[in-house]
Amino acid sequence: MPNCSTDRPWDTHGNVGIVDPQDFHSPTPFKFENGQQIPELNVRYETYGTLNPERNNAILICHALSGDHHCAGYHKSAQKPGWWDNMIGAGKPIDTEKFYVISSNCLGGCQGTTGPSSINPETGKPFNRTFPRLTIRDMVRAQKLLLDHLNISHLHAAVGGSMGGMQVMQWMTDFPDIPERVLILASTARQSTQAIAFNEVGRSAIHQDPNWNKGDYDAENGPDTGLAIARMMAHITYLSDQGLERKFGRDRRQESKSLTEVEFEVESYLRHQGKSFVNRFDANTYLHFTKALDIFDLYGDENDLTQAFKNVQSRVLAVGFTSDWLYSPEENRDIIRALLRIGKKASYAEMEAELGHDSFLLESQAYFELVRAFLNGPGKEVPSNG
Amino acid sequence: MPNCSTDRPWDTHGNVGIVDPQDFHSPTPFKFENGQQIPELNVRYETYGTLNPERNNAILICHALSGDHHCAGYHKSAQKPGWWDNMIGAGKPIDTEKFYVISSNCLGGCQGTTGPSSINPETGKPFNRTFPRLTIRDMVRAQKLLLDHLNISHLHAAVGGSMGGMQVMQWMTDFPDIPERVLILASTARQSTQAIAFNEVGRSAIHQDPNWNKGDYDAENGPDTGLAIARMMAHITYLSDQGLERKFGRDRRQESKSLTEVEFEVESYLRHQGKSFVNRFDANTYLHFTKALDIFDLYGDENDLTQAFKNVQSRVLAVGFTSDWLYSPEENRDIIRALLRIGKKASYAEMEAELGHDSFLLESQAYFELVRAFLNGPGKEVPSNG
Repeated sequence: MPNCSTDRPWDTHGNVGIVDPQDFHSPTPFKFENGQQIPELNVRYETYGTLNPERNNAILICHALSGDHHCAGYHKSAQKPGWWDNMIGAGKPIDTEKFYVISSNCLGGCQGTTGPSSINPETGKPFNRTFPRLTIRDMVRAQKLLLDHLNISHLHAAVGGSMGGMQVMQWMTDFPDIPERVLILASTARQSTQAIAFNEVGRSAIHQDPNWNKGDYDAENGPDTGLAIARMMAHITYLSDQGLERKFGRDRRQESKSLTEVEFEVESYLRHQGKSFVNRFDANTYLHFTKALDIFDLYGDENDLTQAFKNVQSRVLAVGFTSDWLYSPEENRDIIRALLRIGKKASYAEMEAELGHDSFLLESQAYFELVRAFLNGPGKEVPSNG
Repeated sequence: MPNCSTDRPWDTHGNVGIVDPQDFHSPTPFKFENGQQIPELNVRYETYGTLNPERNNAILICHALSGDHHCAGYHKSAQKPGWWDNMIGAGKPIDTEKFYVISSNCLGGCQGTTGPSSINPETGKPFNRTFPRLTIRDMVRAQKLLLDHLNISHLHAAVGGSMGGMQVMQWMTDFPDIPERVLILASTARQSTQAIAFNEVGRSAIHQDPNWNKGDYDAENGPDTGLAIARMMAHITYLSDQGLERKFGRDRRQESKSLTEVEFEVESYLRHQGKSFVNRFDANTYLHFTKALDIFDLYGDENDLTQAFKNVQSRVLAVGFTSDWLYSPEENRDIIRALLRIGKKASYAEMEAELGHDSFLLESQAYFELVRAFLNGPGKEVPSNG
């Protein structure tokens, strides 16, 4: 029987194939923005495509809250590809035939990069509650160490959605000479009050779980209930009312007799989202990542985004998605408005999309063409009208 | 020292003053829509104003999820008035100089009307998990028994917001000859998928609280954590992003060092909302009420709202509030569209409001004038153009 593509999806055209994560281990202390430090740092990452001899075709992918370094291709014996496999590959918008794609698990994460669940070599136990308070800037500084290790001092582009969008904004702000292009998807230059409010409910669910133990829980016995509740709620904010309506409506799984049984399809879906999340995510990482989102504020005390952006050199594109109510189109447009006000090369695009915040992860021809055109278009040295 | 109005707010002009709740006790079994029954029924209620000799000036107020029978005036020694004190009183839009206002705690509630926390006379213990599954129709049938007891067979109006709006729609559907006018505020004829999704997260938080014990908890030792989480989350859906922004922005209470301390003002506000709610609300009631909301669907299996409304006689006004994303303006307008399509006397008004769903509880001149005009305007017998 011949191989068919559904049996070996990594063999299909455009897929980057079987990939192995790699580790960059830095044996020296890593100091956080708040002054605390950890004795060493591991960054887990993947690369796809080939670095050219000029070392200038690298694209850095920055992941969102629940993402990780594995964004394209397949791990050995895995049934599902990386989280952005539709976007990254040969001939795809982030084209691995042209670009060398680098993707790392964020600092503070739980998929291989040093985070709260990593063993502190000084104690032999997980950091847990002793892990330093984390910022988006700290995440970017860990990525910078990875680029140094890879001997890459120039990025063709830095690309990220949601929390990843915050990271790429931090990149263009803190290291203005490194990314030639910055692509911000469904993000914000400062977390809104409503988004903080939702995150606080999720954090409360976790730290009131009896298993939380002030953050010092066993890996096998963590605050799974609280984390699942947090995820269920957050998941609603990643979608839209129309999207939920279209997908589930009021379809019933069963006529429920008790008040705790699943009755509607949407309930079953959310419970599944909650349960599957706890199998792959650490509650302390969730606390740290949501807090890093909440304190992210490029507007600063003077409420002036142009101050943060004054040294930006990159050409910037921000994309808002019409039904995204977590990081609204307006919030994305405001990033570009601030850049344009101070003469930077920046543009804003708005995509019609009905699936809410998560639309940035979904395939649509117009969106994918937009990304492709931006990555293949002029960089910072070519004038806007060139 | 003379009395000043802040010392004795119940003495201020227009306030209905000190009020005493009353009880209507029905000693015979009450049968629920699902066929189950409870051996007897108590309905706690308040009245304001005077019933006229014709017994036709009564206005029934139906409360929302977290409301109760106490909507105007002050209980003895209470510092805060009823939840709709700005709307109800002498000279106020629901004018107690003209109307006899009746407000009862809903069936299944926890403020005096029989609900899960009431003692089942057959067992001597709280109903808790044995309380029958409840519908909006059941709530209305309990209210109908109260009106029978009060010897009132005609309502000048039935008025309700949110869950109360569902009740008044059920009134005009099930008892078309009783309410002369029906005023629906910030409500929906069927719970949306997104609203079901949020309720399911709240229910999950409650029934995964270790104290929940499948609903058989002690009153002193209930699933307070889960209920507080549910309330915090739901509270966000009652507000709007602009409203939260305006009220709290990114104001900080303190620079937090740990991930569990309160940092932003909005976090402190939500935690307070959660904590104060558990002191006055029963988790089983929360489960029952949210489930009653979720299964409310006047569109029915044929997805046709006009079918449900075919016998409506009341004159109907629905009011949507522009920033309400829980029960959107569109959902309120759709109620009226269906009524107009089958020739009923109905109109829709949309209020500019930036505080989200809870705007229906807030004072605004245009809104209050609208309510006043509707209640003093023509009833069902006068033609629309009369």
